[in-house]
Amino acid sequence: MPKVVVLPGDGIGQEITPEAIKVLNAVLKDSAVKIEFENHLIGGAAIDEAGKALPDATLEAALAADAVLLGSVGGPKWDTLPAPQRPELGGLLAIRKALTLFANIRPVKMLPMLVEASTLRPEVVQNVDLVVLRELTGGLYFGEKGRTKNPPSAFDTLIYSEEEIRRIVELGFQMARQRRGKLCSVDKANVLESSRFWREITLDVAQKYPEVELTHMYVDNAAMQLVRYPTQFDVIVTENMFGDILTDLASMLMGSIGMISSASLNGKKGLYEPAHGSAPDIAGKNIANPLATILSGALMLRYSFDLEEEAKLIERAVERVLEEGYRTTDLAKPGDKVLGTREMGDAVVAAL
Amino acid sequence: MPKVVVLPGDGIGQEITPEAIKVLNAVLKDSAVKIEFENHLIGGAAIDEAGKALPDATLEAALAADAVLLGSVGGPKWDTLPAPQRPELGGLLAIRKALTLFANIRPVKMLPMLVEASTLRPEVVQNVDLVVLRELTGGLYFGEKGRTKNPPSAFDTLIYSEEEIRRIVELGFQMARQRRGKLCSVDKANVLESSRFWREITLDVAQKYPEVELTHMYVDNAAMQLVRYPTQFDVIVTENMFGDILTDLASMLMGSIGMISSASLNGKKGLYEPAHGSAPDIAGKNIANPLATILSGALMLRYSFDLEEEAKLIERAVERVLEEGYRTTDLAKPGDKVLGTREMGDAVVAAL
Ligand SMILES: CC(C)[C@H](C(=O)O)[C@@H](O)C(=O)O
Ligand SMILES: CC(C)[C@H](C(=O)O)[C@@H](O)C(=O)O
Repeated sequence: MPKVVVLPGDGIGQEITPEAIKVLNAVLKDSAVKIEFENHLIGGAAIDEAGKALPDATLEAALAADAVLLGSVGGPKWDTLPAPQRPELGGLLAIRKALTLFANIRPVKMLPMLVEASTLRPEVVQNVDLVVLRELTGGLYFGEKGRTKNPPSAFDTLIYSEEEIRRIVELGFQMARQRRGKLCSVDKANVLESSRFWREITLDVAQKYPEVELTHMYVDNAAMQLVRYPTQFDVIVTENMFGDILTDLASMLMGSIGMISSASLNGKKGLYEPAHGSAPDIAGKNIANPLATILSGALMLRYSFDLEEEAKLIERAVERVLEEGYRTTDLAKPGDKVLGTREMGDAVVAAL
Repeated sequence: MPKVVVLPGDGIGQEITPEAIKVLNAVLKDSAVKIEFENHLIGGAAIDEAGKALPDATLEAALAADAVLLGSVGGPKWDTLPAPQRPELGGLLAIRKALTLFANIRPVKMLPMLVEASTLRPEVVQNVDLVVLRELTGGLYFGEKGRTKNPPSAFDTLIYSEEEIRRIVELGFQMARQRRGKLCSVDKANVLESSRFWREITLDVAQKYPEVELTHMYVDNAAMQLVRYPTQFDVIVTENMFGDILTDLASMLMGSIGMISSASLNGKKGLYEPAHGSAPDIAGKNIANPLATILSGALMLRYSFDLEEEAKLIERAVERVLEEGYRTTDLAKPGDKVLGTREMGDAVVAAL
């Protein structure tokens, strides 16, 4: 039986992951495939109970599992620790790196009933259907960093090897080919050497995919274009730090980051998590939006278990619940029927 | 007589700078202060005529001048040159660095009559009045960059000395104090060492400004918040690369980057330029929007010559012209009176 390691983590992570498992169990009830879920510690919860943000037991279980489902990590309680030990660096970035999850995929697909939740004009965001593909184990996040004394200064390094760029860009072309055939590579080649290298390799990989239309865009312009005319995009591929900014920005087209699921892949294994954080301010109140985690579960069925039909069932169930006017508080407008975290999970199960 | 070096540069830069000078001359007609304007070469135009993007004569004139007014640089014609020789790196970044213009100021103030030009909902963008303060001579743009052979890779370095951070943050507090008293420092301190250093120094500088309310925000969240709830911001201060992205993004709140002026300062001298690029596709057609350059002229009067009243006169004249329904094509909606570049310049002069 395939095994999935579940890492609820901190804050609302504790509340939203059970809802995703509830939905996954429901959709697999009559299926031949059964999945075994096994909970482990990560982040602040792991620091408190096991002394570090990514305990060995968690890492071993994740390495042995078929897939990982993660809630979210971090919170003010651990913000005073030295950075490398904190939930973010010591937990989340550490597990991404340890599992070589080099490709982070965040789909942004506008649902007609969410158009009103966006701060952008309806005519601008309706029909948005794009994917941001973010490099996740290199770039500015993982290059050498440190301090110097004379003069006092601090540095980080944005570094990419040819192979790191090639594998993520390759995936970009493959995804574009399966979608509308458009790939936009985002860089800052007018200033950065790593971006010029990125562009050279992208142009080289492009030769294998003549059917994909490749464009290049500077990151400052890309941020602007996502707000000005987002339907121009199909697949965006970019560096780790740029991707961090652009995925959050793109998620706002949907009105709330509470709807954005994500898959972090390496070809063999996948880690699935909502794009939002641990939201300590609303944790424990049963008001967090579990839909991004539920939709991350759908991505898990699609990418890790090849269960396209079951993935679609979950996605349609989520749409149906929204169509019926149910919302969590982050998405609610006057007149909507507001549900709590658990009730939203139940509603999705009922809609399946 | 104070001297201003004018660098029209490339593309629409050649069309918009004359309009700004026309307006500056008009507003100073009855003033005691007269300004002498002296044209010099920069960017692609300089490569073509003088063999390099920042000729010695230009740099010497800029160093000797009281202020610099720049159009824009770059274009496809020079994109095949090695990057360090191109108009952007060899011209624009080189003059910013040579004049130590460490502080780039871009005001984003919503005008009631432009609310309709924004892709964001009117209730989200009306009353936006913020300034992005971008560090301009350090960070990821200017650290060591290069390639390595084994394995093939490329890198850039994000490096800041304490002094570089201190002087820009200091300016941020001063600006916030003169405005609504709120400073938001944007970083990625959960991942980057340079950001943690930035935050430490910011906290230290903050002790001198107890009357300013300081907040910290991660750059991915800041991109999101600018679209979700932009009126929460007063002054934003941030690193060079983050500022590049956030200023362009913030400019979209106004519907067009064609309205965003900028001042690059070092305490003594200022360089003033529109935030937009050289737009080669529309160059030479008399359709470019000269307002960002005209408004940059107003910033020049304010910051370099302490002519607050004359600066306000220009800003009010621009508002009046827009109020009367005149627009350049980038801002036009059905029913607007569309003006060409020169005609817009004339309209502002008439409104003075
Ligand atoms: C928590 C943080 C380290 C993380 C990142 O920057 O990668 C988050 O913003 C994300 O996008 O998953
Ligand atoms: C042209 C380019 C090098 C420049 C920059 O990135 O600084 C531009 O985008 C700007 O913001 O002034």
